[in-house]
Order: sequence, then structure tokens, then C-alpha cells
Amino acid sequence: MRVIVPFDASEPKTRLAPVLSAAERDAFALAMLRDVCDALFALEYEPTVLSTTSIDSDADVVVDERGLTPALNDRLGEEPVAIVMADLALATAASLEPFFAAEGSVVLAPGLGGGTNALVVREPDFRVDFHGASVRDHRQLAADAEATLATVDSFRLALDVDEPGDLAEVLLHGEGSAAEWLREAGFEVAVVDGRVTAARSGDSPDETA
Amino acid sequence: MRVIVPFDASEPKTRLAPVLSAAERDAFALAMLRDVCDALFALEYEPTVLSTTSIDSDADVVVDERGLTPALNDRLGEEPVAIVMADLALATAASLEPFFAAEGSVVLAPGLGGGTNALVVREPDFRVDFHGASVRDHRQLAADAEATLATVDSFRLALDVDEPGDLAEVLLHGEGSAAEWLREAGFEVAVVDGRVTAARSGDSPDETA
Repeated sequence: MRVIVPFDASEPKTRLAPVLSAAERDAFALAMLRDVCDALFALEYEPTVLSTTSIDSDADVVVDERGLTPALNDRLGEEPVAIVMADLALATAASLEPFFAAEGSVVLAPGLGGGTNALVVREPDFRVDFHGASVRDHRQLAADAEATLATVDSFRLALDVDEPGDLAEVLLHGEGSAAEWLREAGFEVAVVDGRVTAARSGDSPDETA
Repeated sequence: MRVIVPFDASEPKTRLAPVLSAAERDAFALAMLRDVCDALFALEYEPTVLSTTSIDSDADVVVDERGLTPALNDRLGEEPVAIVMADLALATAASLEPFFAAEGSVVLAPGLGGGTNALVVREPDFRVDFHGASVRDHRQLAADAEATLATVDSFRLALDVDEPGDLAEVLLHGEGSAAEWLREAGFEVAVVDGRVTAARSGDSPDETA
């Protein structure tokens, strides 16, 4: 099956600006993309990164400057396609396997906050709409296309990394480049007022890695 | 297997105070407890609710006024025990089944924010410690007890409902009493500044149910 990994290469992860510089956000976003592609490679898929600008990647890269929804819908049709978001820093081969194995002409992996983090589209008439509570819209669009809908239940696929609060999850559960990148940048899990967060140590980042 | 559902009946869910009154928090917490117990009943378990004060429940209730950690550790020992938190409003029989089927002398279901939302303990020497980033502590305690550790990957089991932001997840994915309770209380999914949230409509709550 064709697997597309959409990647916003121009100013990625702006909501991480309170804790990461622009250059760091670029590097961290690429580390997450690498983890997603590595998990797909481990399952013997050959993902295509659909990027808004040219980037370096071990995967094939196709540049499309349009927004997520039109760029993806142009690539949906007769052939089955899987879409896996590039910021799933906890995605592993083991967590993606049930997603690809799920039976349904549309398979959804819901994201936290109402998003859709991964889809398999086997239904020729189905189109995506990534806006607002997209998981709800995709359920409706699947019903409209008379698709058989399957939903996978995965914490690893539910976590897309958008905000500083998400970084603690990467440190606690990540097994790849993104978690390593954060540790090398000096981030550690900290408990503040009973809540778990990711904090950058005041010490030299190199020593906390 | 014995299944314990710990429930804090005295002022439950205080972090929901910005959006729910004290009486509403009581009722909503009981609705979530009911969902968890119903999912366990559907799997033919007979859960015991370990509550800080006496409550009405379809399940057996045992009152223990102590904190979570000592109350639970007093009940761990030779016999296998499962612990399932009472605020897993998305828990279903289907999501709990792989948890109970997982092989390991300690099985963990991580919660968002570093918590531990469910455990199976088959290791006589293992004790729990619910404090801070408990998932990390439980991994270490499992290693100390020379347990074989299994971790289940479930979005439904990862979501414990603590904060207003969690309510949108219940509305989007819930299938039971807690989701119904929120709808009847007038909550709806809303998209504000591109983020999905749960908002109470200004209209009569009875009409939006």
C-alpha cells in the first residue's frame, strides 16, 4: 500500500515556540518525521513524505505547497492509500501494525484533541478534511461515502506533538530519535505541583543527555 | 481475577471546578465509575470499588479512607489483582480485553501525563506507588521485583478525565454514561481558535441533550 507522510516544513511546530527556538523546532520536527518513517520502514512500507518545501529525508520526498487537505485529496482515488502524520513521536512498528491490519474501507487512528492522526483509505469516494474536530468530520465523510469504518485504539498513535505539554509524553514513552533529541537538548521529565511536565535543566544540556 | 476500582468519593475531580459545580462533579465522577464497572461487568469481572466513603454502586463497595497507595498495597500479595482507575470515561470492554489478555507478571496501561491508569499485578512482591510520574516509578518497581513487564497501548485507557480539556475527548469518543451525562448537562464539542474544546451552550441544557 502507498503510504503518505505529510510534513509541514515551513515553520513547523510553532506552538512549541515557548520552549524551542525556530531552529530547534525544525530539527525536532525532522527527528519526529524520522521516527515515523523508521517505524514504516520496519514494516516494509516505502513512505512518501509529502512536504511543503524540499527537505532531506531517507524516504522519498514530494513537494506540494498547498495545504494538507487539497494536497492529500489530490492523491486519493482508486488505489488504497495510508496517511500517517509526521509528528507521531511515539509511533512504533508495533503500534502501526494493528492500524494497517484493521479491516475497514476507511481506518481512522484518532488523535488527542479531536484530530485524525492516521488513516487508511480504501474507499475510492472518500476525501479527507483536516479542519477542527477532524475525527468527527472523517466519521461523517466515511458514512457519506458508505465506507465501512474501523477505528484503532492506540495511545502511541493518538499523541501528535504540538504543545510543550506533549514533550513529557515523548520523554516518558518515546523510543526513537525525537526522545533522544529532547534529551540531548537538555529536557527532562519534571513533576511540578503534582503535574508531569518536560523541563529544560539549567545545567549544560550536553551533560543531561 | 480480582479487580479493584479505586474511587475518591470525597470531593472528586476538583480540577474540573472551573466548569462543573461540586454536585455536578460528584454526579459526573459516579457516571465515569459506572462506565468503568459496566465495561468490567461486560467482561464478566466482578469489580470491587475501593472508595474513600460509602457510595451507591452496582458493584461491591469497600470503604478505605486511606490514600490510594496504602489502600491498594494492603490488597496486593499472593493472588493476582487488577486495578482499574474510576475516571477512565472512554474505557470499554473492547479496550480492556487486550489489557487483561496481556502476558506479564506486571501489566501497565499508561495514562496521559505520566500516570498509570490500570495495572495487572501477578507478581507477589510488587507494590504500587501513585505519585508524580507513576508510570516511570512502576516500571522501576517492576524491574526491582524482577517482574516481566507488559505495557498495553490504548488511547481509551490512557485518558483519565481530570481537567476541562479532557471533556472534549469524552464527548468525541465516549459511548456510555459519562458522555451522556455531559450532553445532558449541556456540553458540546466546540472549536475555538483551531483547538477542540468542550463548551457549555448558553441555551437550556435540556434542549442540547
